[in-house]
Amino acid sequence: MKAKVYVTIKQSVLDPQGVAVQGALHSLGFNEVESLRIGKYMEIELGDVTKEEAEGRVKSMCEKLLANTVVEDYRYELEG
Amino acid sequence: MKAKVYVTIKQSVLDPQGVAVQGALHSLGFNEVESLRIGKYMEIELGDVTKEEAEGRVKSMCEKLLANTVVEDYRYELEG
Repeated sequence: MKAKVYVTIKQSVLDPQGVAVQGALHSLGFNEVESLRIGKYMEIELGDVTKEEAEGRVKSMCEKLLANTVVEDYRYELEG
Repeated sequence: MKAKVYVTIKQSVLDPQGVAVQGALHSLGFNEVESLRIGKYMEIELGDVTKEEAEGRVKSMCEKLLANTVVEDYRYELEG
């Protein structure tokens, strides 16, 4: 079972890293970039668990460690 | 037009950040985690471009700035 976890900064929170990369893209001539936000992407390989168990376990991992839910949102997909 | 870009470390390259997070998950009791790799996820809002133009422009952004193609892979999706 594989989980793909996406952690993104909440819309209301400033993303200075995204602003910096956007500036760099503009200076390279990519002026069509209107906004850019950066998040984290994690691929987790899970051992012997059912999809139902994985669902709850991955949610718990996100809440406890992978995302800072004060300033970040998370979502995940399970495969296989 | 919106682009979602995923930058991941190549399979043959060590991911010390992923190893550290995996260790932290184990110490929290998530022993079902067999491996974990961390990448970047970017959401880019593009101005007035067609899907065909966006395709080439986003590829070019990845090659020039967003991914270090020596040690990282990238993929992207276009929406809207």
